[in-house]
Amino acid sequence: MNALMEQASRARAAWLELQTADSQLKNRALDCIAQALTADREDILEANRRDLDKARQNGMSPAFIERLTLNEERIQKMADGVLQVAGLPDPVGEIMEEWDRPNGLHIQKVRVPLGVIGIIYESRPNVTVDAAALCLKSGNAAILRGGSDAFESNRALMDSLRRALSQAGLNPDCVSLVMDTSRETVNQLMRLNEYVDVLIPRGGKGLIHSVVQNATVPVIQTGDGVCHVYVDGECDQAMAQKVAVSAKVSRPSVCNSAETLLVDSAIAQVFLPKCLEELREKGVEIRGCDRVRAICPWVKPATDQDWDTEYNDLIYSVKVVDGVEAAIDHINRHGTRHSEAILTSNLEHARLFQAKVDAAAVYHNASTRFTDGGEFGFGAEIGISNQKLHARGPMGLRELTTYKYMIGGDGQIR
Amino acid sequence: MNALMEQASRARAAWLELQTADSQLKNRALDCIAQALTADREDILEANRRDLDKARQNGMSPAFIERLTLNEERIQKMADGVLQVAGLPDPVGEIMEEWDRPNGLHIQKVRVPLGVIGIIYESRPNVTVDAAALCLKSGNAAILRGGSDAFESNRALMDSLRRALSQAGLNPDCVSLVMDTSRETVNQLMRLNEYVDVLIPRGGKGLIHSVVQNATVPVIQTGDGVCHVYVDGECDQAMAQKVAVSAKVSRPSVCNSAETLLVDSAIAQVFLPKCLEELREKGVEIRGCDRVRAICPWVKPATDQDWDTEYNDLIYSVKVVDGVEAAIDHINRHGTRHSEAILTSNLEHARLFQAKVDAAAVYHNASTRFTDGGEFGFGAEIGISNQKLHARGPMGLRELTTYKYMIGGDGQIR
Repeated sequence: MNALMEQASRARAAWLELQTADSQLKNRALDCIAQALTADREDILEANRRDLDKARQNGMSPAFIERLTLNEERIQKMADGVLQVAGLPDPVGEIMEEWDRPNGLHIQKVRVPLGVIGIIYESRPNVTVDAAALCLKSGNAAILRGGSDAFESNRALMDSLRRALSQAGLNPDCVSLVMDTSRETVNQLMRLNEYVDVLIPRGGKGLIHSVVQNATVPVIQTGDGVCHVYVDGECDQAMAQKVAVSAKVSRPSVCNSAETLLVDSAIAQVFLPKCLEELREKGVEIRGCDRVRAICPWVKPATDQDWDTEYNDLIYSVKVVDGVEAAIDHINRHGTRHSEAILTSNLEHARLFQAKVDAAAVYHNASTRFTDGGEFGFGAEIGISNQKLHARGPMGLRELTTYKYMIGGDGQIR
Repeated sequence: MNALMEQASRARAAWLELQTADSQLKNRALDCIAQALTADREDILEANRRDLDKARQNGMSPAFIERLTLNEERIQKMADGVLQVAGLPDPVGEIMEEWDRPNGLHIQKVRVPLGVIGIIYESRPNVTVDAAALCLKSGNAAILRGGSDAFESNRALMDSLRRALSQAGLNPDCVSLVMDTSRETVNQLMRLNEYVDVLIPRGGKGLIHSVVQNATVPVIQTGDGVCHVYVDGECDQAMAQKVAVSAKVSRPSVCNSAETLLVDSAIAQVFLPKCLEELREKGVEIRGCDRVRAICPWVKPATDQDWDTEYNDLIYSVKVVDGVEAAIDHINRHGTRHSEAILTSNLEHARLFQAKVDAAAVYHNASTRFTDGGEFGFGAEIGISNQKLHARGPMGLRELTTYKYMIGGDGQIR
């Protein structure tokens, strides 16, 4: 048994206790974590400075440095986030359903934690605290494997977290950090089916793809959003323009922002010049199909690749389609099953679009940007699932649980 | 694009229509399938005879031949099973939850089919019909990859199924058989994430292990049951003996039968001689720990391996443990998270056992053998999941669905 297997085995043992911890104990632990983060901020910032020095020496990009950087305000925000999770309702123990069978057996379907969750993420130290808090509150043990560039920061945060757990009377092995950030070790983590129940990768497309390719432990895929806005021929064009623009420009770097704008040929001649002009004024690069360019000749030509690209940037691919069925067809070919929107005043078109588009969240007359745990009212989220098993869309505390059947009898045999 | 990719792409296209098919149409298709199976029975039996001839030439075991064999009665049973599925309630379209957000968005969580399901199974031709019917009723397309030994039978069954779908007005590509039974092709199926949403392997441990090791498409693991019966110190010993014996002998070949009997040391001296004698009379081979053998010296010694073995046979490993906590600990180390039972009159022990044992179904005073879709009242099942993502325990029609959020607004942006 090597170091990682021992760590995972200890995490499972700690989880077997944690699974039945009551809400009060878990909330006390979260309070202790929030306090510890504030109390230990000097040590955490010093560790972060070591990571930052190394990142600068390695010539990392300003955006990378920005994501890696901690400061007093960010540490306070982490601590506030932990307290917010403490304030959310505990999903564990809910009796989801119960019924009696003719033979007298009474069956209860009870919500329980998933078990040991492996979180694999990049160099954002805030994920360390977020993920630990969400796992803990939902009764799960967490094994965190952060990026090597944030190792010192993560280690300092983890020291703080684990001391807080001990102080609250929980086994500190409920949360731990993988200390060896080599590729071999992360690959081993992905295959520890004996101890790890679920993997949740958080990060870019490359990271998620690598986990899906290598893991034998079940994975919940998150992120990866090629989201579409479809402007139907029958719609309030002013509202459609507002939503189509906002879904791209309000925060282009996130997965729920739109990448492709589809416009019904019935109104393209009128709608496109106004809408694309506003986008251009807001600094968006437009890449259009031939029919778009016939109307707005200044638009750059889109290539086949554009329809499958998540830009995460101020770039918008735009296509003219012949009605709602053609829009649905395009989305089901090129979408990533994340978030899709139709803007229409025709309720039959809206119904058809919502029924036929294969995605976690399908909007009628609203922006795709609302696919978010906070916006859905879940309070917090660990990610947005765009696969179909287990959970779809924003994953809050409830989505970090499973169920178990508890059956009571008086000696029934079969 | 090779033949399998084309098949999978057609299955996805067929599913995009099937996902919104109403219950009446799906039930009509199931009726047509049942009729077609009866009408085509001569062709099916002839194809089956070719498989049986080959199997005999290849020297397959009598048990293998028995599972492979079709006859008029078995075909009628398949057809009856299809009609039974037609009679079950359709889970698709259920509004599971709905709520309003302060910004005026109305969110509905709606039950929808999973999509394209790949079923990988061994040489039991009845799975072809069962799986197709369950997938169809729950609005899923199915790609079936059966064992090569049943290929002729499966092809004849599939011809019959697909003709019936066309006749009912559904796209026959909703159900199809992988025509190339090579290992390369099944490995490709396990990695067709673009077209296949879920894999469900049905069969022995080796098959399931191979799918888990090779798949990048999400897998629902089924089967694999090292199930325990724990007889607590405080219990109705006559009832405990009845359940402990029945859980082993009533049908030892299935995954929900017990493999290990745990007995509290407080009553071992009294309980074991009676119980093990009855088991011996019923032809069960007993393999015991040292403490069991100190009480019943005729018992064979158990090895370490026995505690992790699913015998699927009239063999029972038996161990003396010191109370309920020790029983829980043994089960959480050696169980496969399937079905576990405690026999006790102490409600606190029952509560502790049901809360702490990590399994899909945890029984108090009843046999583990009830973990079954029919016994739970689900009407039918595609398998028993012993992983934690998505579904646990018996998987009926509802467990073959996921959900999608349908959100309505009046121009909300973020």
